[in-house]
Amino acid sequence: MRWKEIFINTLREEPRDAEAPSHSLMLRAAFIKKLSAGIYAYLPLGFRSLQKVINILRDEMNRAGASELIMPALHPAEIWKSSGRYDTLGEDKFAFKNRSGMEYVLGPTHEEVITQIVAESVKSYKDLPLMLYQIQGKFRDEARPRFGIIRSKEFLMKDAYSFDEDEERLDVNYQKMHKAYLNFFKRSGLEIIPVSADPGLMGGKVSHEFMVKTPYGEDKIVICKNCSYQASLEIAESFIPESDVPQEKEGDIEAISTPGITTIDNLSKTLKIKASKFLKAILYKTEKGPVMVCLRGDHDVNEAKLKRLLSAAHLEMASAEEIEKLTECPIGFLGPSGTKNIDIILDLAAGKEKNWVTGANEKDKHLRNVNINRDFKPALIGDIRYATAEDRCPKCQSSVTIENAMELGHIFKLGIRYSQALKAQYLSREGKKKDIIMGCYGIGVNRVLAAAIEQSHDEKGMIWPKPLAPFDIEILLLNEKDQTNIDVANDLEESLEKAGFQVLMDDREERAGVKFNDADLIGIPLQVVVSPRNLKEDCVEVKVRKTGETTKVDLSSAIPKIKGIYEKI
Amino acid sequence: MRWKEIFINTLREEPRDAEAPSHSLMLRAAFIKKLSAGIYAYLPLGFRSLQKVINILRDEMNRAGASELIMPALHPAEIWKSSGRYDTLGEDKFAFKNRSGMEYVLGPTHEEVITQIVAESVKSYKDLPLMLYQIQGKFRDEARPRFGIIRSKEFLMKDAYSFDEDEERLDVNYQKMHKAYLNFFKRSGLEIIPVSADPGLMGGKVSHEFMVKTPYGEDKIVICKNCSYQASLEIAESFIPESDVPQEKEGDIEAISTPGITTIDNLSKTLKIKASKFLKAILYKTEKGPVMVCLRGDHDVNEAKLKRLLSAAHLEMASAEEIEKLTECPIGFLGPSGTKNIDIILDLAAGKEKNWVTGANEKDKHLRNVNINRDFKPALIGDIRYATAEDRCPKCQSSVTIENAMELGHIFKLGIRYSQALKAQYLSREGKKKDIIMGCYGIGVNRVLAAAIEQSHDEKGMIWPKPLAPFDIEILLLNEKDQTNIDVANDLEESLEKAGFQVLMDDREERAGVKFNDADLIGIPLQVVVSPRNLKEDCVEVKVRKTGETTKVDLSSAIPKIKGIYEKI
Repeated sequence: MRWKEIFINTLREEPRDAEAPSHSLMLRAAFIKKLSAGIYAYLPLGFRSLQKVINILRDEMNRAGASELIMPALHPAEIWKSSGRYDTLGEDKFAFKNRSGMEYVLGPTHEEVITQIVAESVKSYKDLPLMLYQIQGKFRDEARPRFGIIRSKEFLMKDAYSFDEDEERLDVNYQKMHKAYLNFFKRSGLEIIPVSADPGLMGGKVSHEFMVKTPYGEDKIVICKNCSYQASLEIAESFIPESDVPQEKEGDIEAISTPGITTIDNLSKTLKIKASKFLKAILYKTEKGPVMVCLRGDHDVNEAKLKRLLSAAHLEMASAEEIEKLTECPIGFLGPSGTKNIDIILDLAAGKEKNWVTGANEKDKHLRNVNINRDFKPALIGDIRYATAEDRCPKCQSSVTIENAMELGHIFKLGIRYSQALKAQYLSREGKKKDIIMGCYGIGVNRVLAAAIEQSHDEKGMIWPKPLAPFDIEILLLNEKDQTNIDVANDLEESLEKAGFQVLMDDREERAGVKFNDADLIGIPLQVVVSPRNLKEDCVEVKVRKTGETTKVDLSSAIPKIKGIYEKI
Repeated sequence: MRWKEIFINTLREEPRDAEAPSHSLMLRAAFIKKLSAGIYAYLPLGFRSLQKVINILRDEMNRAGASELIMPALHPAEIWKSSGRYDTLGEDKFAFKNRSGMEYVLGPTHEEVITQIVAESVKSYKDLPLMLYQIQGKFRDEARPRFGIIRSKEFLMKDAYSFDEDEERLDVNYQKMHKAYLNFFKRSGLEIIPVSADPGLMGGKVSHEFMVKTPYGEDKIVICKNCSYQASLEIAESFIPESDVPQEKEGDIEAISTPGITTIDNLSKTLKIKASKFLKAILYKTEKGPVMVCLRGDHDVNEAKLKRLLSAAHLEMASAEEIEKLTECPIGFLGPSGTKNIDIILDLAAGKEKNWVTGANEKDKHLRNVNINRDFKPALIGDIRYATAEDRCPKCQSSVTIENAMELGHIFKLGIRYSQALKAQYLSREGKKKDIIMGCYGIGVNRVLAAAIEQSHDEKGMIWPKPLAPFDIEILLLNEKDQTNIDVANDLEESLEKAGFQVLMDDREERAGVKFNDADLIGIPLQVVVSPRNLKEDCVEVKVRKTGETTKVDLSSAIPKIKGIYEKI
């Protein structure tokens, strides 16, 4: 295929506002085009790579016994209200009424729709198990779309859904999908890190994420330096062993004057005490009443963990007004000592240390040497914070690192979360009506492309892994006016295509330098240069994009030699 | 693949509200599932057929030199305002504002978006010609969604767009696409009628539609019984030769009392005069002032033709109030005779006849023997009506028929309609900035499926043309509990798949009757029945769905024999 035909108008300049390399390179190499904030078109090169991702995905899904279908993007809002997610999604959803007042949600996910379809079709256990999947566009009104196609308002998802009689059978499908995902990422040439994860908005109990490391990832993962432990920061257990806890004697409590100093940062600077010696107190509201959450000044509350510890359905930080009303203490001076009628929830790590600096529950005043049990009694102690690099592996106690990562896939054991809400039932082997046990399995199709670029590029451009490259080989015809050169290039193109390669030919009326730069930018794995200088020696030059290694090959044996070089990449 | 795996839960009963056979059959055979009015999911069987359509389309588009891309569904409303179609679409579009007040249109077509993309990428004539296409979902808030997927709110389109330097080069691409369309329909097994058509909302001057005849089509086409003339009723010339015009002498004008009788229908009954002898007068408003349109009582105004004749941008029928205000005559009694200050536009056919019955421009009164030139003078005479079966072929004067048809494809020479509005220009060979000349080429992908079913079904169900069938062969395993039967069916499945067939196996725990009925309903071209009775004779029974013809074939030579029968279908 010819360069012009496939509409590759590369950009010379670095696009503005493109922080992530994948974003910048996809724009420059004409893989994508921005239409509006967070909204992109996939130009033919991008489409070809996307199609490769889709083909591998489709193959893995079919092998796993899943059947493909297409669901609408227009969902009646009603169905989202039935599942209770209409409110949970809040402003993240695109929702609107049409001419006749009917309200629609533009599908951000499809659990509601697939559950309704299955509810109306499945009658008995004989119709189960069932595994369905879709590859299609979804919509989310991202408040801050970022990094090009990594966080966009319109994106392509592969989502599979399993329907089973019981948890054991769900587990069989879940493992099948877990394996299919590992296969998919391997076949796509991506280095993936599967981690235990938090089901979050989706509901259900068990979930796994498939992550790639990248500085532009918006997620964090905890990786043990020694054993196989790797988990999403959202659920990673925090763990500081006894040996790491400083041993101290309890000192006498004393007041410190801290006029107008309310943040840990400022207190730490003014009092010259490191942040980890402060016990910060945060007031949360739950449907069961308020709680005061206490943890080390340098630690952060993980609200998902806190919610689980409290068995709370709703959790929200109290406002300054609410704090004053509930505690009669101004914000910034809250502390556990002397607090009445509000349960104190203490983080596990904080529970082991002594002589805290805390708020005095009085304006402009803090306390030194506050101690647990002596000065306040926690109602509950548990792991309610995010792990840090200071924590140890909860499995083998070795050190851990925390890395930025991008989520490419997420699989969930949903259980009866949706089948119950949408009445998806089946007649069991015992003749009883039962809720269908569900699982769901998503992969962000566009993100796979972005991840491939993040993992494999250099200062000149993209370096495509063979399975996802828009073409296998690019022929650079340097002199597009000389008939001998044209003939050699055409012959090569034809022979390589016959040998099963997808070939892109750059035969533009452009300078050689432009062609070399553009070839490196779009990152096809192998470049074949047809130039007058080479032809004098009856050869062409073959360059491996990844290593930059070049080889001159005789025209007479070009095809098998090029094939050999390609196979070794 | 197994019946259960692919999620085919057929319906026993006729679905309510399904008028068209394709609608009813697709619901019954579990090809589609309704989510809401005009909104459908494609279940795995439907998806497979849809995918076959897409594969043939993709192949034909690629052969025609077009490159595939994907465009967003979310369009900034701004771009629709730039082209002027924001208002034209009116309530047919889904438009809404998001959390930050940004307005989006859910893409009903993509001319605006592709033009903007090309405008930002193409610089000079060297970047042209260019042919791009997309296969993706589009949205239209149909006021009255009908016939299942034939007229729905969310639908799948293949749209191609060409970009050229001039009209001659556009014509080359237009012809290429016209040919690709004919190839596509032929390869899909559809009988198609290509007709000249009205560009309508899309703009541009030349367009062709690709229609299939069906009683449930919402379009009409005029077909000459003798020559190759076939045209959309929207643009078909009306033509009544002189020889068909009754010869009369002009009679004297006389008044008739017609108290409260205002419609042609009632007048015709009361006065016992056939409708074709009335000259009806209709008042239209245009930006140039009002006109009175006169045509035979049994003819209908074609507003597109009228607009062209008047060179008017806006055309709207006057209301009763406006008529009274302009003519001082109540609605129902309007006539050309005595009309002042309003131009009379006369239909060509009416211009040839004499002695009309018309309104008298006075309440409860009509006139008999009104004659052109003597009693009123038309400002313009032209073809302003829809042709009828009484008209003759404008090419060869033979009789014509008018048939209901469904539009599957529509191709347009857009010219500079969009490139001008969205500033898509290129630097010409002469170094001048010029508007790019565009064409666009659409096919309703889902409609292709509906059309295939409309053209090929019987009272038992669908009869798929081989190229679009979800599977090539269905094996009916009647006794799914006997190991010998199971083994034979499995062997057959494996061997047929090895021979390149897509095989569906019905191995459900169901009665034979259910399997036979369902096989006929889903309409796979060939059925292979594995039953204990046949196995006693060491054979299986092969049935051609289309003809109902059955053949017993020996197990020993089953594969080549089945192959032979399949090839002959």
